[in-house]
Amino acid sequence: MKELAVVLISGGLDSCVTTAIAAERYEVAGLHVTYGQRTAARERRAFQEIADFYGVNERLVADLQYLREMGGSALTDERIPVPRAPDSLWTTPPESRAVSPTIPVTYVPFRNTHLLAIAVSWSEVLGARRIFIGAVAEDSSGYPDCRPEYYRAFNRLIEVGTKPETRIEVVTPIIHMSKSEIVQKGVALGAPLQLSWSCYQAEDRACGECESCVLRIRGFRQAGFIDPIPYARPIDWGAEATPLG
Amino acid sequence: MKELAVVLISGGLDSCVTTAIAAERYEVAGLHVTYGQRTAARERRAFQEIADFYGVNERLVADLQYLREMGGSALTDERIPVPRAPDSLWTTPPESRAVSPTIPVTYVPFRNTHLLAIAVSWSEVLGARRIFIGAVAEDSSGYPDCRPEYYRAFNRLIEVGTKPETRIEVVTPIIHMSKSEIVQKGVALGAPLQLSWSCYQAEDRACGECESCVLRIRGFRQAGFIDPIPYARPIDWGAEATPLG
Repeated sequence: MKELAVVLISGGLDSCVTTAIAAERYEVAGLHVTYGQRTAARERRAFQEIADFYGVNERLVADLQYLREMGGSALTDERIPVPRAPDSLWTTPPESRAVSPTIPVTYVPFRNTHLLAIAVSWSEVLGARRIFIGAVAEDSSGYPDCRPEYYRAFNRLIEVGTKPETRIEVVTPIIHMSKSEIVQKGVALGAPLQLSWSCYQAEDRACGECESCVLRIRGFRQAGFIDPIPYARPIDWGAEATPLG
Repeated sequence: MKELAVVLISGGLDSCVTTAIAAERYEVAGLHVTYGQRTAARERRAFQEIADFYGVNERLVADLQYLREMGGSALTDERIPVPRAPDSLWTTPPESRAVSPTIPVTYVPFRNTHLLAIAVSWSEVLGARRIFIGAVAEDSSGYPDCRPEYYRAFNRLIEVGTKPETRIEVVTPIIHMSKSEIVQKGVALGAPLQLSWSCYQAEDRACGECESCVLRIRGFRQAGFIDPIPYARPIDWGAEATPLG
């Protein structure tokens, strides 16, 4: 019987490929965290479908509702006009919001620490000793908690903050990969990329225009594959691109 | 105008005295975290009353509902018979539960990491640079996340996990104090000890028998004071003890 590992599955491309990597050696326990981001329902569906694909029995959806209660918390950047009512941050449709599309409105400072704290507590409950997270250092300009130093510091925190007999370690298998290497790895492992969802704006067909879509499209293009998810606008994948799925 | 500091206020004796220490130099923003523990309502009241006492404007009550969803999570200790339905862990009255009174049923591995992650995100929102937590190393046998090493590791995590311009530090002013020193410090600062609540079992009059009550009573006795909160049974404070409040 395979050992159990907790895998953080947001439902995006990176977490989908991370799940594929974890599933090679471990039985996966899937942890999905939601905090009122606009595409929460679509991401949760992606999580469930990826978990179905890998036959995941242990699943936990954690709702960080208190992040909503902090109100402006996700929007500390001064370039972003903060809407009058904090609640509207999470519910107003994208087209009526004066928010720069290059800054994810769901950005929460120190967010990965919330996710990993849940993962550690759940690992203790399940007896899992590995936590997989699809952090990518390339993204680290905006997200300091995606860098390797952060994960070293977090593993040190686990060491001193849990019982001596506890042996839990966070692993970041794709942290040094580019988006195109992540796509290639996913294809090589037969990861269900068609089930993953990256778009920040839409839930039916990906907009193809937000930062997350653009990074994803670029990754597929450089890897030489056609992304199997539907897009709201025609995408040029290049003449040589291989269809998937 | 005083600088703002986030103070974790559970409502117990330690956090009450920690609030008094913080209030000497800072304007307090009060953070209370609830996770379905049995005396949650009484602790929340203690939090609000302590916050009222110090004229706290910024308050956040964060509900970690996902800890309830983990079910057995708070009860990983094998000496504790786990009830059939995980939900009942949090709702069954104490007298009908076969739980050792020396083990807090609300114990969650790595709990303080959840609390501090919220405190850091909220500090970023508020622009606070200090986070006060009433951790006490003496308690560290059961709680590895009460030790000074843990807080050093957490401060390192903040350093690498937040933006370079972020300067947030967790401080633990009572970490090396005994319970009796904590009582003395609270009395010296005029902390509203009568508003704090420590009992794990009851919400009207403290039982005087659970581990938390016993540690509190012992602290007051050694400090030479009579605890101003009501107890369900007569307590021997000693002939020389000074009444408070």
